[in-house]
Amino acid sequence: MLKQVSVDGRTDEVAVELPLEVRLNGSPVAVTMRTPGHDFELAAGFLYGEGIVSEAPEMTLPEDLAANVVDAIAAEAVPPATRRFYTTSSCGICGKGALEEVEAIAPAVEGGPSIDRALLAELPDRLRQPTFERTGGLHATGLFDAAGESLLVREDVGRHNAMDKVIGRALLDGGLPFSENVLCVSGRLAFELVQKTARAGAPILVGVGAPTSLAVELAADRGITLAGFARGGRVNVYTHPQRVR
Amino acid sequence: MLKQVSVDGRTDEVAVELPLEVRLNGSPVAVTMRTPGHDFELAAGFLYGEGIVSEAPEMTLPEDLAANVVDAIAAEAVPPATRRFYTTSSCGICGKGALEEVEAIAPAVEGGPSIDRALLAELPDRLRQPTFERTGGLHATGLFDAAGESLLVREDVGRHNAMDKVIGRALLDGGLPFSENVLCVSGRLAFELVQKTARAGAPILVGVGAPTSLAVELAADRGITLAGFARGGRVNVYTHPQRVR
Repeated sequence: MLKQVSVDGRTDEVAVELPLEVRLNGSPVAVTMRTPGHDFELAAGFLYGEGIVSEAPEMTLPEDLAANVVDAIAAEAVPPATRRFYTTSSCGICGKGALEEVEAIAPAVEGGPSIDRALLAELPDRLRQPTFERTGGLHATGLFDAAGESLLVREDVGRHNAMDKVIGRALLDGGLPFSENVLCVSGRLAFELVQKTARAGAPILVGVGAPTSLAVELAADRGITLAGFARGGRVNVYTHPQRVR
Repeated sequence: MLKQVSVDGRTDEVAVELPLEVRLNGSPVAVTMRTPGHDFELAAGFLYGEGIVSEAPEMTLPEDLAANVVDAIAAEAVPPATRRFYTTSSCGICGKGALEEVEAIAPAVEGGPSIDRALLAELPDRLRQPTFERTGGLHATGLFDAAGESLLVREDVGRHNAMDKVIGRALLDGGLPFSENVLCVSGRLAFELVQKTARAGAPILVGVGAPTSLAVELAADRGITLAGFARGGRVNVYTHPQRVR
């Protein structure tokens, strides 16, 4: 979603950023800065990734459609008020004992496919971000099969939102867990992206950018193959290289 | 701050990411994923940027120095419990009426220096990120004077943390507002970085990456000169170009 702005006397396009309030059973649980579009996916994926819901919630809109609010209805939800809870477009729940907290909502990933190293290195090129090429302002997450076929791509000004949208789409379609798939992100690999990957059951996560220390630790602990700096035909495999041929 | 990891049979370095809990007068107000170091600056800058404190708080550490906790003591603090409040390494408070909310904590910036366009385009090159060059994993924020001299640079895995550290250092030193300075960031320009810039009173914000729609709107509204895509000798000036020669 793009908006035209004036810059240096000409017209340019920038990515739209607007807040979205996510409500659960009528109560606000989070506000995130996001690119509008796929809001149901975003809200569903966020709630799932944080362990608040385990099944697809019923998604509804308020009467004021311009309110930038979505409401998720889920009888089985674990109210976030019982947990320390923070969120935005780029980072979610965390805290002391972050690794321990993740274990409760994301079981270790076992099995999964193997993938050719050259193909793994090439996946970011297959993300195809038409909007990014025009604005330079959007992150993308893609879902791939082990043969490198792109199954779903979502974009957002927030890197975590892009992954939430992919996971949320699958949750709403009954397509989780991602046991035989690879998640690919257009940017850096921080802790929370690995947390969401584990929660979605994806055995392999690859990104264009660098991982953080906590991302590497969590991937090692949760059985996830974490690969970074995938560019120019090369890729670094930080954890669980047994899935990379 | 770097940590050595094993990757593809050799040793590599990644940026350290660990949670920091910020307490205010003994009560937790936020947890952010950050690169350890300059934690007092980070906490002070965050509390100031969000409008929770207006003067330098007294910063203390708990007895367990490994706890990743800092406590800010500030009798004048506006308790965040009275406001909708979310935070992480990359985004802070937001919500419906985000622009209106910002006005309450960040007055419009008036006056300020003018800067040569070629110099503005070159500022990101002067950020000098020694750690980034080794890991590719850190964001940076720099404070410059209008002659392009670098006054302070901070790095973090979270882009907002890097700016919080710069603002926090100045707050603790009595160096706010940044009335005659330019803030420069290594990445994209989203809403909240403009919010923090306004709160710190800096008239010019420049970044390597693209701005979002809400960043442009807020900068226009708050009197800030917002410039993006500063690379290769070029720069786009989105708002208030009167400060660019």
